[in-house]
Amino acid sequence: MEQPWVSVIMGSTSDWPTMQKTCEVLAELEIPYEKKVVSAHRTPDEMFRFAEGAEERGIRVVVAGAGGAAHLPGMVASKTTLPVIGVPIKSATLNGVDSLLSIVQMPGGVPVATVSIGKAGAINAGLLAAEMLGIQDPEVRERLRTRREAIRQSVMENGELDE
Amino acid sequence: MEQPWVSVIMGSTSDWPTMQKTCEVLAELEIPYEKKVVSAHRTPDEMFRFAEGAEERGIRVVVAGAGGAAHLPGMVASKTTLPVIGVPIKSATLNGVDSLLSIVQMPGGVPVATVSIGKAGAINAGLLAAEMLGIQDPEVRERLRTRREAIRQSVMENGELDE
Amino acid sequence: MEQPWVSVIMGSTSDWPTMQKTCEVLAELEIPYEKKVVSAHRTPDEMFRFAEGAEERGIRVVVAGAGGAAHLPGMVASKTTLPVIGVPIKSATLNGVDSLLSIVQMPGGVPVATVSIGKAGAINAGLLAAEMLGIQDPEVRERLRTRREAIRQSVMENGELDE
Amino acid sequence: MEQPWVSVIMGSTSDWPTMQKTCEVLAELEIPYEKKVVSAHRTPDEMFRFAEGAEERGIRVVVAGAGGAAHLPGMVASKTTLPVIGVPIKSATLNGVDSLLSIVQMPGGVPVATVSIGKAGAINAGLLAAEMLGIQDPEVRERLRTRREAIRQSVMENGELDE
Amino acid sequence: MEQPWVSVIMGSTSDWPTMQKTCEVLAELEIPYEKKVVSAHRTPDEMFRFAEGAEERGIRVVVAGAGGAAHLPGMVASKTTLPVIGVPIKSATLNGVDSLLSIVQMPGGVPVATVSIGKAGAINAGLLAAEMLGIQDPEVRERLRTRREAIRQSVMENGELDE
Amino acid sequence: MEQPWVSVIMGSTSDWPTMQKTCEVLAELEIPYEKKVVSAHRTPDEMFRFAEGAEERGIRVVVAGAGGAAHLPGMVASKTTLPVIGVPIKSATLNGVDSLLSIVQMPGGVPVATVSIGKAGAINAGLLAAEMLGIQDPEVRERLRTRREAIRQSVMENGELDE
Amino acid sequence: MEQPWVSVIMGSTSDWPTMQKTCEVLAELEIPYEKKVVSAHRTPDEMFRFAEGAEERGIRVVVAGAGGAAHLPGMVASKTTLPVIGVPIKSATLNGVDSLLSIVQMPGGVPVATVSIGKAGAINAGLLAAEMLGIQDPEVRERLRTRREAIRQSVMENGELDE
Amino acid sequence: MEQPWVSVIMGSTSDWPTMQKTCEVLAELEIPYEKKVVSAHRTPDEMFRFAEGAEERGIRVVVAGAGGAAHLPGMVASKTTLPVIGVPIKSATLNGVDSLLSIVQMPGGVPVATVSIGKAGAINAGLLAAEMLGIQDPEVRERLRTRREAIRQSVMENGELDE
Repeated sequence: MEQPWVSVIMGSTSDWPTMQKTCEVLAELEIPYEKKVVSAHRTPDEMFRFAEGAEERGIRVVVAGAGGAAHLPGMVASKTTLPVIGVPIKSATLNGVDSLLSIVQMPGGVPVATVSIGKAGAINAGLLAAEMLGIQDPEVRERLRTRREAIRQSVMENGELDE
Repeated sequence: MEQPWVSVIMGSTSDWPTMQKTCEVLAELEIPYEKKVVSAHRTPDEMFRFAEGAEERGIRVVVAGAGGAAHLPGMVASKTTLPVIGVPIKSATLNGVDSLLSIVQMPGGVPVATVSIGKAGAINAGLLAAEMLGIQDPEVRERLRTRREAIRQSVMENGELDE
Repeated sequence: MEQPWVSVIMGSTSDWPTMQKTCEVLAELEIPYEKKVVSAHRTPDEMFRFAEGAEERGIRVVVAGAGGAAHLPGMVASKTTLPVIGVPIKSATLNGVDSLLSIVQMPGGVPVATVSIGKAGAINAGLLAAEMLGIQDPEVRERLRTRREAIRQSVMENGELDE
Repeated sequence: MEQPWVSVIMGSTSDWPTMQKTCEVLAELEIPYEKKVVSAHRTPDEMFRFAEGAEERGIRVVVAGAGGAAHLPGMVASKTTLPVIGVPIKSATLNGVDSLLSIVQMPGGVPVATVSIGKAGAINAGLLAAEMLGIQDPEVRERLRTRREAIRQSVMENGELDE
Repeated sequence: MEQPWVSVIMGSTSDWPTMQKTCEVLAELEIPYEKKVVSAHRTPDEMFRFAEGAEERGIRVVVAGAGGAAHLPGMVASKTTLPVIGVPIKSATLNGVDSLLSIVQMPGGVPVATVSIGKAGAINAGLLAAEMLGIQDPEVRERLRTRREAIRQSVMENGELDE
Repeated sequence: MEQPWVSVIMGSTSDWPTMQKTCEVLAELEIPYEKKVVSAHRTPDEMFRFAEGAEERGIRVVVAGAGGAAHLPGMVASKTTLPVIGVPIKSATLNGVDSLLSIVQMPGGVPVATVSIGKAGAINAGLLAAEMLGIQDPEVRERLRTRREAIRQSVMENGELDE
Repeated sequence: MEQPWVSVIMGSTSDWPTMQKTCEVLAELEIPYEKKVVSAHRTPDEMFRFAEGAEERGIRVVVAGAGGAAHLPGMVASKTTLPVIGVPIKSATLNGVDSLLSIVQMPGGVPVATVSIGKAGAINAGLLAAEMLGIQDPEVRERLRTRREAIRQSVMENGELDE
Repeated sequence: MEQPWVSVIMGSTSDWPTMQKTCEVLAELEIPYEKKVVSAHRTPDEMFRFAEGAEERGIRVVVAGAGGAAHLPGMVASKTTLPVIGVPIKSATLNGVDSLLSIVQMPGGVPVATVSIGKAGAINAGLLAAEMLGIQDPEVRERLRTRREAIRQSVMENGELDE
């Protein structure tokens, strides 16, 4: 397998139906990625080892999905200077408001690039990772442009509304 | 200095005016404690070392104050089986709602004993730590009882309301 | 039956599917417990008698689940110096936000150790009670450590994500 | 002093600047009242004794102000079948949202007549008590009508707006 | 039909499944009542006529249920000095938070006795109306006491929790 | 004075510092207007008379500002088929969230054109009234266009940011 | 087809079940309208062209529905001086609170006439558009009056509530 | 002046005290940047021209600050495939909750990398931009690492807490 550029991690296997959207976008844009469960609370040492080793392993962007008191994106961000994208998972009781605030309200010094709650956010995490990689890689940028244009066309052509 | 039983940690020196209330209560109840700044995001490795070593050093309860995307209490809790009390600091923009949700909404498996936002919570963190220690230590329990009764008396005697 | 160490109370039989999780954790950790319905609003005198007598009966920790205007944990806490853990039940209309604020926002002087809303919180209430008991009881602490490690292993081994 | 019809209680002397508004309205409407500090959390037994004895003492309506995890109105209501009016005090961190939800979200079986947060609510508590007493007492009703009309006149006459 | 003491009104027939609970409680307590749809927004003149005539018709308490931008309880209250109890109906999009705030946050001068959102609130509206009537009517008070005691007994006897 | 096209009403003189912004915009656009205090709760009959007579008096648009349980815009809208613009006043305790929900969440059948909370909303109420009048009146539309362009120019020219 | 007076646009075909309500009201009131998908984020240039050309094409009012970070109504409003009505679509995770705030909280200078979240709001958008057109067109006003009266009658006649 | 890599834009000069923090971080990390006011609502065409031309001008990352119904970051993002970082400005009435939701809740397809509300977020926007640039530029990455370490040292050395 190709060296992954993006590492898609999540706090629990139950986050996979959401985070799968990130992986689908990365696959569509031909960006090599890896995916794994890394839990801030249940496997804290593994999380730290992951974060410490990511850059050396060639990872360029980390996407981290987590729900509730979502500490995974922020804690990984505290251990690397790679850009970390946080996806707030829709939580069972508070619809992801807790996830969103736990991820986005980071103190000055350690940023997390937060996207919208749930599947829309997971799609956008993939696209945002690609936009970041596009700073360096004109091909990725070009694929993003093509995808955008295709979506624009699709809106133009499929906007039929039933009477 | 006596071996501390309670460790009062906080994410930033700016949390001290709040967390000082915890220390005052512990001092009043003659419970030996230590206090220090340990930042989940700015000193993650020191935080992990702190959490790993706390039990061995004789600490019995940890009180952790943090604000915003408050990861300190939950991350320390993930690294120790000592009881961890989380104090949500009143945050600049969201009044501590972000701190509260980031601390209390822990996933099943890693508990944080959360108290109220701000100074009232910091007072209660000290009292809750004492209640936990009181399971083992009848003298601490007795001092808690005396304190309660004194407060009851004070309410009874000082309840004058101006016309 | 063995003398219970933990008393698991709840405001209504409808809280049982949630609070059962607390009992399951306590059973798993071999901590003797009792469970009963005690309603702050429908049986206030019984609640007070319960709280007054708990310590004498050998109870060391109280876990109280309640929803909506959830007064049970705080009122029990006002009548005992045993540590009281409050579990906010997910409420029908406001998803447990009302339960959470009614439990956690206690005034300085009477602490309630609040955990997350719903079943995750109920699990954590059992674990938190065990952590408190572990201050005194090395065996309970050891069982907590073993449980943690087992969960860590399980995350490591069962983190497979479908393509 | 005349036998009071309304008892105005509050959890703390710090609630007095708010609850004073209730007393002013009652005085204005010539309704005999008493006022005192009764704390659900710091003087629970006194609170129960108060609630148990209120009806026998001739009290017809209870007005209870409390803030944060505001348990006073609901707990008094659980111990009497007198109507209890709850005034949510504006709290330091959450602006009284916690007070409001802790008071209004009572379970079916034990009602609390909740009014608006803060001083407007305290004024309305006095008026609502008067409206309740007016069921029995035509003079009180008449005074309410006169007060209403005076306010209407005042709005009509003093509605000047500067250019 | 007996002269009704309580008028139970609601903004829409869709509020009936909630407001039916109020009527059931009133029937159980043998309090004569009427029920009707009166819409603040769709039949404003009828609402005003209702509010103006209620006292003269012998109504002693009004219970008004409404959802969303719930203006019915407050507007009726502005037109009568009878006590008005407001029941916030659980709304389709915001779970009744909009209903609650539209009802409870009345300005100083015109009180609405607000109860909890949804069916629990509707039950409590019936009980609160009875408590108000009980100021004048010892029989109603006695029936309330009996009902309370029966519920207490029921909690005591039916508190079995499955293993 | 010229026949007013827009009537700017508000629930209280305390709303004037906000609603003055509406009047300033209308004056700037040379749209004749009137302004007055009309309280839904303190002068309900006057409010109804105002709403019933507005169209006949030549009023074409109503702007209504109100705070808290803000019933003025919706109740006026229930009594006229003129367009009603609602301005949520920033409230003392809940920052205008209560005002906003009480105004915007109208049931299907009676619309209120809601603008943003506070002074920005009051400015926009004036502009929105002008846009509505511009459907009929090309001069008003032209003045709006000129104002827009002036603001655009001002942003372009005054965008200097200090180093 | 007749020249449309109202343009009903929406960000996505998935908004159609909501926005259809607007179209049904316009059809009922015999107001010519057009409907189309115009996405602020996926077809920004088409959105700008739409907004720039709307007035010249004879459009008098724009109704724009959008959900989540709902930018469509405000961006169209920034490009035209026609009145723009914004309908907050009920969003998947936050029930339309995000849509509401993104639409209503416009800065001073560019108004959006915001209606309630979801289908009730879509109905009201149609009625509000008609009220605006009624400034110029007495027939539309008359049809609105007739519709109101019919609804009033319907409430009066169909207010039967089952025992 | 050097060709800027990062463009820091904001909706209003009043956002500058916040967005200045972004510029300070970029200057500290020796990253060339430009700064300007670009308003989504007051200068929409200029905003589109800015977004269309940014990549060609050599801009690699856009940082956009906006408050209230904050459309600037999302609209710029809809017009470029450069990564866009959104800073929610603390708003006058809702403390930035409206800004946050308007920025972060973007639909799938157009990502905005959202940071925390206010000045902490503005600092993090500068750091996040640097992390993105660090994918390509080892020197920037190195400076980020050095900055992190300096902050860690500073926490370690200046954690003194007064007795």
